[in-house]
Amino acid sequence: MKQVKPFLIAVALSVTASAFAQQAAPKPETVIKWRQSVYQVLAWNSSRIKANVDGQFNREEVVRAANSTAAIANSGLGALYAPGTEQGKGWHDTSAKPEIFKDGKKVGDLAGNFVREANELAKIAVNGDQAAVKAQFGKLGQTCKACHDDYKVKD
Amino acid sequence: MKQVKPFLIAVALSVTASAFAQQAAPKPETVIKWRQSVYQVLAWNSSRIKANVDGQFNREEVVRAANSTAAIANSGLGALYAPGTEQGKGWHDTSAKPEIFKDGKKVGDLAGNFVREANELAKIAVNGDQAAVKAQFGKLGQTCKACHDDYKVKD
Repeated sequence: MKQVKPFLIAVALSVTASAFAQQAAPKPETVIKWRQSVYQVLAWNSSRIKANVDGQFNREEVVRAANSTAAIANSGLGALYAPGTEQGKGWHDTSAKPEIFKDGKKVGDLAGNFVREANELAKIAVNGDQAAVKAQFGKLGQTCKACHDDYKVKD
Repeated sequence: MKQVKPFLIAVALSVTASAFAQQAAPKPETVIKWRQSVYQVLAWNSSRIKANVDGQFNREEVVRAANSTAAIANSGLGALYAPGTEQGKGWHDTSAKPEIFKDGKKVGDLAGNFVREANELAKIAVNGDQAAVKAQFGKLGQTCKACHDDYKVKD
């Protein structure tokens, strides 16, 4: 599968907006639901990778979960923060702070870090040993946390 | 990213069960929530691909969405139908019919079809023209429908 370069995520929103213009745009609640679902799938993948780096290491499962994470990271998540989705209820009220819709440059940098570390984990998962995967999984987790710290409402 | 061969999905469930054994197993409601989220992310990807094959064609967006779909398809979704998740509430009551937990061979075949067509779409998205992508997107959709017809409770 072809990987999309990090810098392309910056244009994801406008590209998607133009594609959606061809058909009825999805409702904000639908977009928020998709957004919340993305993070649940990432949580599932993280849960599986964590089980493998802390316990018995099954490379096939780690590769599958890491590939899913990387492909999602590269899939243009910026589109899920489209105008009109600042507030609203998907599965539940959005946990996104208003600032994530305003801090374009900083959010782009954090998103780029996430994409880079996710791609690196997918690479290391293929050949790296358990310790190498664990170290890279930790780096990826830091990029998740960096964004959550600033832009996710605390539970 | 390395693609996992379709036949490997057959062993996904047992592999994952063993990995989860190393740490506290996730609650059934959590697994159902992940399962429901996976299909929402697939729906988002489908929505984007549909917009592109019916309107203005942006290859980068199609590649991103198709790669995400393929990676998720290859990620071992069988684990999300673990024993204990036959009934219960994730984001909402499960829409999975009881038969999906029993018809192992048939479900495996349908899942294999889904993985195969998703991988093919990811391949065609890289070089194929809009018509070719649209045709393959249609084939993929048929594999979704085949499973929904038999194993998803109607809304």
